[in-house]
Amino acid sequence: MRGYGMKAVNQPAWLEKEKPVAGPMDAIVRPIAIAPCSSDTHALHGGSGEKIDTILGHEAVGEIVEVGSLVTKFKPGDVVVVPCVTPDWEQLGVQNSRSNAHDSHLMGSFKFLSQKDGTMAEFFHVNNADANLVNLPDEIPVESALMTVDMMSTGFHGVELAEIGFGDTVVVIGIGPVGLMAVAGAKLRGAGRIIAVGTRPNCVKIAKEYGATDIVSYKDGDIVEQIVAMTGGGSDRTIIAGGNEKTFAQAVAMTRECGVIANVNFFDVSETLSMPAYLWGLGMSNKDIRGGFCPGGARRIKKMLEMIKNGRVDPSKLITHRFYGFDAMEDAFKLMDEKPADLIKPVVFIEWDK
Amino acid sequence: MRGYGMKAVNQPAWLEKEKPVAGPMDAIVRPIAIAPCSSDTHALHGGSGEKIDTILGHEAVGEIVEVGSLVTKFKPGDVVVVPCVTPDWEQLGVQNSRSNAHDSHLMGSFKFLSQKDGTMAEFFHVNNADANLVNLPDEIPVESALMTVDMMSTGFHGVELAEIGFGDTVVVIGIGPVGLMAVAGAKLRGAGRIIAVGTRPNCVKIAKEYGATDIVSYKDGDIVEQIVAMTGGGSDRTIIAGGNEKTFAQAVAMTRECGVIANVNFFDVSETLSMPAYLWGLGMSNKDIRGGFCPGGARRIKKMLEMIKNGRVDPSKLITHRFYGFDAMEDAFKLMDEKPADLIKPVVFIEWDK
Amino acid sequence: MRGYGMKAVNQPAWLEKEKPVAGPMDAIVRPIAIAPCSSDTHALHGGSGEKIDTILGHEAVGEIVEVGSLVTKFKPGDVVVVPCVTPDWEQLGVQNSRSNAHDSHLMGSFKFLSQKDGTMAEFFHVNNADANLVNLPDEIPVESALMTVDMMSTGFHGVELAEIGFGDTVVVIGIGPVGLMAVAGAKLRGAGRIIAVGTRPNCVKIAKEYGATDIVSYKDGDIVEQIVAMTGGGSDRTIIAGGNEKTFAQAVAMTRECGVIANVNFFDVSETLSMPAYLWGLGMSNKDIRGGFCPGGARRIKKMLEMIKNGRVDPSKLITHRFYGFDAMEDAFKLMDEKPADLIKPVVFIEWDK
Amino acid sequence: MRGYGMKAVNQPAWLEKEKPVAGPMDAIVRPIAIAPCSSDTHALHGGSGEKIDTILGHEAVGEIVEVGSLVTKFKPGDVVVVPCVTPDWEQLGVQNSRSNAHDSHLMGSFKFLSQKDGTMAEFFHVNNADANLVNLPDEIPVESALMTVDMMSTGFHGVELAEIGFGDTVVVIGIGPVGLMAVAGAKLRGAGRIIAVGTRPNCVKIAKEYGATDIVSYKDGDIVEQIVAMTGGGSDRTIIAGGNEKTFAQAVAMTRECGVIANVNFFDVSETLSMPAYLWGLGMSNKDIRGGFCPGGARRIKKMLEMIKNGRVDPSKLITHRFYGFDAMEDAFKLMDEKPADLIKPVVFIEWDK
Repeated sequence: MRGYGMKAVNQPAWLEKEKPVAGPMDAIVRPIAIAPCSSDTHALHGGSGEKIDTILGHEAVGEIVEVGSLVTKFKPGDVVVVPCVTPDWEQLGVQNSRSNAHDSHLMGSFKFLSQKDGTMAEFFHVNNADANLVNLPDEIPVESALMTVDMMSTGFHGVELAEIGFGDTVVVIGIGPVGLMAVAGAKLRGAGRIIAVGTRPNCVKIAKEYGATDIVSYKDGDIVEQIVAMTGGGSDRTIIAGGNEKTFAQAVAMTRECGVIANVNFFDVSETLSMPAYLWGLGMSNKDIRGGFCPGGARRIKKMLEMIKNGRVDPSKLITHRFYGFDAMEDAFKLMDEKPADLIKPVVFIEWDK
Repeated sequence: MRGYGMKAVNQPAWLEKEKPVAGPMDAIVRPIAIAPCSSDTHALHGGSGEKIDTILGHEAVGEIVEVGSLVTKFKPGDVVVVPCVTPDWEQLGVQNSRSNAHDSHLMGSFKFLSQKDGTMAEFFHVNNADANLVNLPDEIPVESALMTVDMMSTGFHGVELAEIGFGDTVVVIGIGPVGLMAVAGAKLRGAGRIIAVGTRPNCVKIAKEYGATDIVSYKDGDIVEQIVAMTGGGSDRTIIAGGNEKTFAQAVAMTRECGVIANVNFFDVSETLSMPAYLWGLGMSNKDIRGGFCPGGARRIKKMLEMIKNGRVDPSKLITHRFYGFDAMEDAFKLMDEKPADLIKPVVFIEWDK
Repeated sequence: MRGYGMKAVNQPAWLEKEKPVAGPMDAIVRPIAIAPCSSDTHALHGGSGEKIDTILGHEAVGEIVEVGSLVTKFKPGDVVVVPCVTPDWEQLGVQNSRSNAHDSHLMGSFKFLSQKDGTMAEFFHVNNADANLVNLPDEIPVESALMTVDMMSTGFHGVELAEIGFGDTVVVIGIGPVGLMAVAGAKLRGAGRIIAVGTRPNCVKIAKEYGATDIVSYKDGDIVEQIVAMTGGGSDRTIIAGGNEKTFAQAVAMTRECGVIANVNFFDVSETLSMPAYLWGLGMSNKDIRGGFCPGGARRIKKMLEMIKNGRVDPSKLITHRFYGFDAMEDAFKLMDEKPADLIKPVVFIEWDK
Repeated sequence: MRGYGMKAVNQPAWLEKEKPVAGPMDAIVRPIAIAPCSSDTHALHGGSGEKIDTILGHEAVGEIVEVGSLVTKFKPGDVVVVPCVTPDWEQLGVQNSRSNAHDSHLMGSFKFLSQKDGTMAEFFHVNNADANLVNLPDEIPVESALMTVDMMSTGFHGVELAEIGFGDTVVVIGIGPVGLMAVAGAKLRGAGRIIAVGTRPNCVKIAKEYGATDIVSYKDGDIVEQIVAMTGGGSDRTIIAGGNEKTFAQAVAMTRECGVIANVNFFDVSETLSMPAYLWGLGMSNKDIRGGFCPGGARRIKKMLEMIKNGRVDPSKLITHRFYGFDAMEDAFKLMDEKPADLIKPVVFIEWDK
């Protein structure tokens, strides 16, 4: 079968690989719609180390074409939403109630593109199908469902980590698709003022629609100074959803004592996170620094879909570019890699008459 | 000075009392707007036991007329929002991080009408002024601010106790003003489906505007059966914001295993709360039963005001009846006591040209 | 194969049944040691409703005799500790981070004696073996390990639910084996004063060894009055580990505002739990009422074993009666049913030269 | 009056200052016993910036000599335990339930030596006496009570921040007096294995008595490698109670995914805390990094005293050197500054016949 991915670092390519095989608890899925993500392009450029002959992609809605003998809830023909984090629920890591994203080791539940081929293929493999897949509800468009599997689940995880209280002032650094979902999630978690840090006009517009009350731009000066000034001392909660190693200390600096810094940004393996001790109150500030990967599995995605179904959020606003046809995955991926100014999130519909 | 209250149980009356005196940390406040509450009428009818010669009322926005010698943040002339819960911050009970509503004993932080005269008077007394009062922000109407001091803070406390997760199905039993605020708060805390239990057309309309997706009425049959059927097994979280002793078991019955029942309803001293053990999974269901009084103090109210300022919620929708003039307190109180079908919340403006 | 259990309610008997069959993820285990529990005798007497032809028992250490084709961590001959709660980790209920004890429905993870035959047999069946079984560590005696699977895990769950803070005053009502483990767990969670409610000399002695500082007996008067008096107003946390429907209101009554009542007692299906509303502060006391079933799976038991291995607790103190040989299960079970004054916990060693 | 402190950075001296004056809510206290702390010597050497003419010391048990007009619970002659953190409870910072250590700004509740003269004087000043002071219980020795006000409260705060679960493997880096208290606290919070990092024989001995199961020394090689190897992948929880800027990354490195790093070490204003991003799972590891100052006020100290009273911990084991007489403060302070190998904690008894 064909799939789009990488021959090696910085060598994107169409690959010809064997169709995946379903073990007893697994499903084989044919994608109906996929979305490239900056984690895919990050991998292409070596951000997660060496990698060869790997199909990329970890966001998909698809149709089941085969299930293993122990799968009881799904059958071929079912249209399913596929979480980007699919724990192996027999691993003890899922029994740690702090997160199931690390089923057997760090990020062990992140299988696509990391431990096996991804979703940008004619077919892809899903482990523990009963526990990980969700039937697409009739009332939810494919593209909205597709936004839950990583963008919304990850952005909302940032919000969960931030532990927002009613009326808190929240900063979201970075308003790419994950940051925008963090803005929407912060509003839906009771934030008062939401300060979004970013510059792209497209993103600024959506940030406001999702609930941002203030926009801060790097172009207007130091973002820490701006935020400390406008909040009279700092934010209650700061979510990092973009940036680079410098963002770490900035986030700590702009957050008040007893605040929380919550990271959902994927730092690069080459980066070092550092902060002068005084920004952290010499260790005495009771500012928590958290960072994590979104929970996996079917229950999580069902909750995200419930929010869409009940009109709480419309994640399809993220989608700025729509592509049609299997072969368009290449164009969509290249667009993601180039990140033109008007891009937020591209989607490829392999099948679009559903 | 004059104040409206009770001579004894079931004897409402205008009372003539001494003007309160400010201790070193206190303030004396002249009400600009007050709102009667069902806790006031409840007290009148003996719901909290014997009580004589007491001015009622515990919701107010007012103007400071006098401050004690140790008060540093406020001065006569300041217009302030007055929390209904005003802890004595020198008591050790406030150092229990689970709630400061019980500063020295059960509900010790609830002073108005309970431990001293209330707010329906020419003047009223506020303890620990620096820690309890909040300046009315320019951009917030008096009536909106007035809704924060009990209705919003209490309804939102129900939501906090319920510990809602993104996408959870939440039931709110009772859609008087506190229940309506719980509906609004549940939406602002990430609920998916919100099922409001109530019948009054006025309230049903506002419940929907605040985020209720479903309305369940006692008139259509047993509410437990209806809710279990429509949710396929029960709610994730249930907030009790009205009802009587029977509501307790109903709430437990309609909530799934691992759910939370959160009470902010004032039960009557004559009532007994009971449930067949099997509804609670014979004690094994991991359904938490919580109930509490809203946190007090200035920080809480500031957070509530932040939410209004940033457009997250408009609690003034609760106000169905507006009265003008000091003497109108009597009419407003009687209306509260009669609870006609179109009443949600009455407000009395003692001064209305601000 | 033979097993001891019940033909019907109140009809204990040896049963002849087919040897269980291992599905692909399962194991078949031969018990080395088992312990009868009051939940078994409770079932015999109809406490959990009708039940016929069922082998009882849910506490065991055993030797694996067979594993399914997908089991990777265990093989025949392995000596394993078997949790009494064995979730089916492919069910979505385990993805609710509040508890995995309810994998598909209320107490769905409690399989033995409830949904299939129990452990008092020549062989018993364990679902999801990789995720539920734990190798017996060399340094831990069989009988100590056996005490972790229910007594220690359940008693410690009571402590977890109680959310004890450093120095808190904790009451444990009932000092049978679960209550004694709750006493030990409360000490290991930072309690200051621990007041144990019970009378049996054997149990009182062990309670003191485990950390109880005070013993309160029903024989000396009303336990609520005694505890309120000796604590100057009530406990911070109260754990119910025994008693009957009346215990519920007593526990609420003896707990201070902002306290927690944590239940791990199995109430009878015929009981009704009730409390006068004023004991619960008319719903305003911020006293949480919690009750639940211990978490299941291998990780939980590994943590319990870690505590034994590091000398934090010795649960073998619970064992007052030791029986030897497969057939002795009947005598041990009858002793459990009779509950003589000197009994805390009986154990049956089917094999005892290990 | 006389007091021992600093004329300027690196200029220790006896100072002659005015006797402090009690405001209406304050008390003036004469020390009975004090203990110098490394935070005092740290201040002397400029670790917290410029400082002149300041009496040092923040740990004391003393006798009240004067109270303000609003103080109701204490009177001259009372012997009291004085928390090192004494919030001004009228400040809004205490209403943030995450910590009251920052009442008006970062560490605003830390008054002694930081915002006013410390406890190493003939008399010292305590704000908000009713809310901050605790009567010394008859059954607790002065020196044990003295260990609660900072050493035990701070060490135990590290344990609270670490959020230890039953059976968790906990590392404590640094076994000076605070680290030793963290070891004792970790045991009292349910830890399984406790690995203490340190080398001084005196401290190692006490660490084992307090519950450490393993000792790791810098002298035997890289501590991260040692701990990762002996735990098979890292600790569940790591408490930093000593070290320097390099300790930060080490702590992150030796902690597993979903773990917690909890800091109670006072870093120097000149230090920068940094970690390669990969040690933090590129931001995706769900390892929380926390650090804070112990809660203040009377309730906290009462809880600590409860633990001593009930035999849960004996903090007087920390005391290696006892001095007698007011003038001995100088010698004790100099000893603290020199930190000879056999020193853990010195105490000065100004009065010792109580």
